[in-house]
Amino acid sequence: MTEGQTTNRRRITGFSNETVKAIRSLRDKKHRKASGRFLAEGLRLLTDARASGHLPETLVLSDTRDPHPLLAELESAIRAAGGAVIETTPDILAKITGKDNPQGVAGVFAELDTALTRIDRAAAPIWLVAQALRDPGNLGTMLRTADAVGAGGLILVDDCADPFSAEAVRASMGAVFTQRIARASWEEFLHWLRAGEGQLVAASLRDAISYREAPYTAPCFILVGNESRGLPGDYETAADLRVTMPMKGRADSLNAAVAAAVLAYEVLAALEKEI
Amino acid sequence: MTEGQTTNRRRITGFSNETVKAIRSLRDKKHRKASGRFLAEGLRLLTDARASGHLPETLVLSDTRDPHPLLAELESAIRAAGGAVIETTPDILAKITGKDNPQGVAGVFAELDTALTRIDRAAAPIWLVAQALRDPGNLGTMLRTADAVGAGGLILVDDCADPFSAEAVRASMGAVFTQRIARASWEEFLHWLRAGEGQLVAASLRDAISYREAPYTAPCFILVGNESRGLPGDYETAADLRVTMPMKGRADSLNAAVAAAVLAYEVLAALEKEI
Repeated sequence: MTEGQTTNRRRITGFSNETVKAIRSLRDKKHRKASGRFLAEGLRLLTDARASGHLPETLVLSDTRDPHPLLAELESAIRAAGGAVIETTPDILAKITGKDNPQGVAGVFAELDTALTRIDRAAAPIWLVAQALRDPGNLGTMLRTADAVGAGGLILVDDCADPFSAEAVRASMGAVFTQRIARASWEEFLHWLRAGEGQLVAASLRDAISYREAPYTAPCFILVGNESRGLPGDYETAADLRVTMPMKGRADSLNAAVAAAVLAYEVLAALEKEI
Repeated sequence: MTEGQTTNRRRITGFSNETVKAIRSLRDKKHRKASGRFLAEGLRLLTDARASGHLPETLVLSDTRDPHPLLAELESAIRAAGGAVIETTPDILAKITGKDNPQGVAGVFAELDTALTRIDRAAAPIWLVAQALRDPGNLGTMLRTADAVGAGGLILVDDCADPFSAEAVRASMGAVFTQRIARASWEEFLHWLRAGEGQLVAASLRDAISYREAPYTAPCFILVGNESRGLPGDYETAADLRVTMPMKGRADSLNAAVAAAVLAYEVLAALEKEI
């Protein structure tokens, strides 16, 4: 493809270019929030995004990237949708993504709708709910698990890590685009939950039954708490079921993303057995 | 406690002090390997280590730490064992640990024995095996899960992340001290495994049966592969069982630590049902 073939493709080679600066600033939460945009890297992620109906507004390509049919298709689709394509040096792409070995392609996306009220709970039998989850890697991993168990999405309660941070997007392996993500306070979430059907299941040590023998029903909302503090006591007591997993060793808790996954797979198996 | 109360306690306030440099260098794998030592941070981790029979050779304390009875006990135990106690500034401790908010205490430990041949497989019904696991956070999380399911330890096959890196130690939440850790090539591992009892179970998509219906037997070795490439084909075929977990979404795999945990909890439940 030659220079200037389309009007919405351009080449940028200056580190101090305003577009480069604006895209690079998306690594900061503040700038993501202000611009309503986020960054996703890698052909696999961008292809998954497209398959889920999400095209980047801007595609950034390294001029040393390998040609790939999926990339050519992606570029055509972006141009057809009126998006921009920027070709640049590997150094600048590395500066934008903050990674030493960028995969040669990144996309700028409009932030996804995170309104709880627009979630259709009947769309899936399982939903994950995280409270005050601080680690973006855990958050992305929970999205990936949610995708795997056929969940509808991840509801982020109270002050959680940003699901559109580079680390969360990367750890989600594309699930940031396939799963619904909502943000709400605990009061908002509980009010919304109780306005319809839905069983709230908390991973808990308090007055809990074995996670293998609990009577799960769909739509089942699996609630896990903060990495170091767990769930607040009143959140646990608000749950319809408190379930516990065996702890055979010295520790009294699992990694939050691991706890969510073990529970989610158990709920999936239990709900499928009922059918 | 006053300055000079014991001969093996001293105060260091210089960034360029050789002891500070030596301890700080333990953040690099190369220096950990050369010195045969590693660093663990936080009172909780150090207390868990002590409860598992591991005392640090050197304890580093910030002079702004809060007093704590567990810390006083730990210090006494270290001094009784002939270890060193260093008091320093919060800045220097932060420099040593590479963290902005150090917990006021860190310990230097002799690296633990990672010889496969010294593992007693009969000591536990479950063992985790990771192949070419690259992410230290995943590695630490697997150790934490291993502790939770009552596993004996984690066997690291081929070129894995360093289990004694700060990130792995932190993610293990102390399990680095309670779980056996072994390092081996695939050939060494397979030779050792086949010289005794043991069922090798691989998380796999190839010719696999449902992980919920597999005939697990103890000691059960749960094998998961590299984060991006999964297991090599011949490793999968060498397994006694290949099991698969439902993948209801777009993705065809789980995070490695999540896959290990979902499988390990299933194996635990299946083995307990047999008893």
